[in-house]
Amino acid sequence: MAIRLALIEVHSLCTRALSHAGLREDSCRALANTITACERDGEKSHGLFRLPQWVRALHLGKADGTTAPALHDIAPSAVMVDAKRGFAPLAVEVGLPTLIQKARANGIAVLTLREVFHYSALWHECELLASEGLVSMAFLNSKSFMAPAGGTDKVFGTNPMAFGFPRPPSSPPLVFDQASAMMARGEISLMGQQGLQLPGGCAVGPDGQPTTDPAAALLGAQLPFGAHKGSCIAMMVELLAAGITGGPFSFQQREEDCDDTSASPTRTSETIVAIDPVRLGGVSSLDALYGHTEQLFEALAQNPEVYLPFSNRHERREKSEAHGIEISQELFEEIQLLLPGVK
Amino acid sequence: MAIRLALIEVHSLCTRALSHAGLREDSCRALANTITACERDGEKSHGLFRLPQWVRALHLGKADGTTAPALHDIAPSAVMVDAKRGFAPLAVEVGLPTLIQKARANGIAVLTLREVFHYSALWHECELLASEGLVSMAFLNSKSFMAPAGGTDKVFGTNPMAFGFPRPPSSPPLVFDQASAMMARGEISLMGQQGLQLPGGCAVGPDGQPTTDPAAALLGAQLPFGAHKGSCIAMMVELLAAGITGGPFSFQQREEDCDDTSASPTRTSETIVAIDPVRLGGVSSLDALYGHTEQLFEALAQNPEVYLPFSNRHERREKSEAHGIEISQELFEEIQLLLPGVK
Repeated sequence: MAIRLALIEVHSLCTRALSHAGLREDSCRALANTITACERDGEKSHGLFRLPQWVRALHLGKADGTTAPALHDIAPSAVMVDAKRGFAPLAVEVGLPTLIQKARANGIAVLTLREVFHYSALWHECELLASEGLVSMAFLNSKSFMAPAGGTDKVFGTNPMAFGFPRPPSSPPLVFDQASAMMARGEISLMGQQGLQLPGGCAVGPDGQPTTDPAAALLGAQLPFGAHKGSCIAMMVELLAAGITGGPFSFQQREEDCDDTSASPTRTSETIVAIDPVRLGGVSSLDALYGHTEQLFEALAQNPEVYLPFSNRHERREKSEAHGIEISQELFEEIQLLLPGVK
Repeated sequence: MAIRLALIEVHSLCTRALSHAGLREDSCRALANTITACERDGEKSHGLFRLPQWVRALHLGKADGTTAPALHDIAPSAVMVDAKRGFAPLAVEVGLPTLIQKARANGIAVLTLREVFHYSALWHECELLASEGLVSMAFLNSKSFMAPAGGTDKVFGTNPMAFGFPRPPSSPPLVFDQASAMMARGEISLMGQQGLQLPGGCAVGPDGQPTTDPAAALLGAQLPFGAHKGSCIAMMVELLAAGITGGPFSFQQREEDCDDTSASPTRTSETIVAIDPVRLGGVSSLDALYGHTEQLFEALAQNPEVYLPFSNRHERREKSEAHGIEISQELFEEIQLLLPGVK
């Protein structure tokens, strides 16, 4: 049986559970915002399903719920936030205003996040930046789960990158957020539960041989999308997230954290680049940008089979805002156990 | 029969042919530098083979050989070069010093190139920036040859992106330069000449149906690498190259230039982002960066099957510098016809 919750109830469940686990109030709110946004948009894989894992990270002391992120204004176009082993959403919230101000002042700017427990999606920050009229790219590494193309050792994380581009107020912004792995880890688990086989090329088993068995894939190593070219993207994400920040590479996060059974968050790094398109000399205003770039989206829309990322999200969003969302009875009961006053 | 040429002879052939076609001296030199670098590194697809096409673009008046690129210092971290329909290598040469200075001063900077005839590889600028200790990304669109994933209309160019990352002086820098198309157009032609079939997923024919026939693929539309995810990368390249610069999108370049039979250059745009990793607060010096990032390359090197981009290039480079390069008799004769004093 499914339980229907209003979005305000989703937010409240998150803040109550996280606060009870010792997380500071501003971080509870920031984290609840992102979990609620994911549930609202139908992105279940980053929604309430992960709440017990965030709470567990606090109980195990892997994440620090008490520290405040420290903002360092490093250079005219660079800002760094040291999350001090706290969760990502608050660190992003602390860094974004300075990133936005620097991008507008200088044309382009970069925000790096260090020592961050990141367990959320990247599209959220790219959508926010797009709503400010900025183009953005975000890069995040994670504990290693993926071999480079041609290899069998887990060197790379699933290494998502996201991209956001502003559109006129009448359209949702263009945002994509995609792992460098061919399939998401959650999708592989789900196919295993359903007794399905994986498509070829998405993993090797623990023996290093290609496999279509979900269980073997989870024990072995995932593979990048698009063979060598996707592997290059994964390496770029690794170097932009962990390389330039001095943070641990994905294979080093694996060495730090032997908990292989869950996709538990680890101490990682994120890099966000923001570009102000009206400060580059090509277009004089956001309206001029839209007059130009909407022509591309119109050309794409002429082909109804083409998938434009983010296009379905806003329909789901409106529906959730009106009618709430559903979670399973099991998950609802699991979350009840995390709330104050429950033995 | 193959003709062997010293690199200095390659350079001289280029400058003589281009100068004879009316190209200004500084642009001859810049273009000859990149053609020679491609021949030197064994990258034949951007080498002398294209010289007749550059000359043809000048004769047809598609490219302007007389204009000097104009540098516009737009914002503290943004510089724009208007190439005025001249060739890319000179425009890049004019813009890079300001890009480097701004990245070092501010942490990150962006160079946009407008109205540029780009017909070269992107790795060259990323290697140069890496040799200056800078991390870089370059994005270029082109005349449309590729449908988005799921579609059949040629909306996107083959849309290459390149990435460069510095390494210690004892190693070549890490550079990759890859089209968003699954296969390069030149590779498809070559497979056709050899009577081979294409792998699945790389093109649709003029009827919109998937094809493995090279001739049908060249008449139809290429497809992106890695399905939807590669298609998102192609769209990002399109928006970063042509979107933020106000330059023509790939499908608009196709409308401008109906010459479908050759991969002739068109009026396009390029965007290069440069990041100074020692200005971000994560690593205090290039030595500190290398102490950190070389660990990733060591982890990758433990798997001998893994392809590290750029790793083979330097062996070919040393060999070419010592022994020169070879081109076919046919190409040599074709180039002779472009030189002064030949009827």
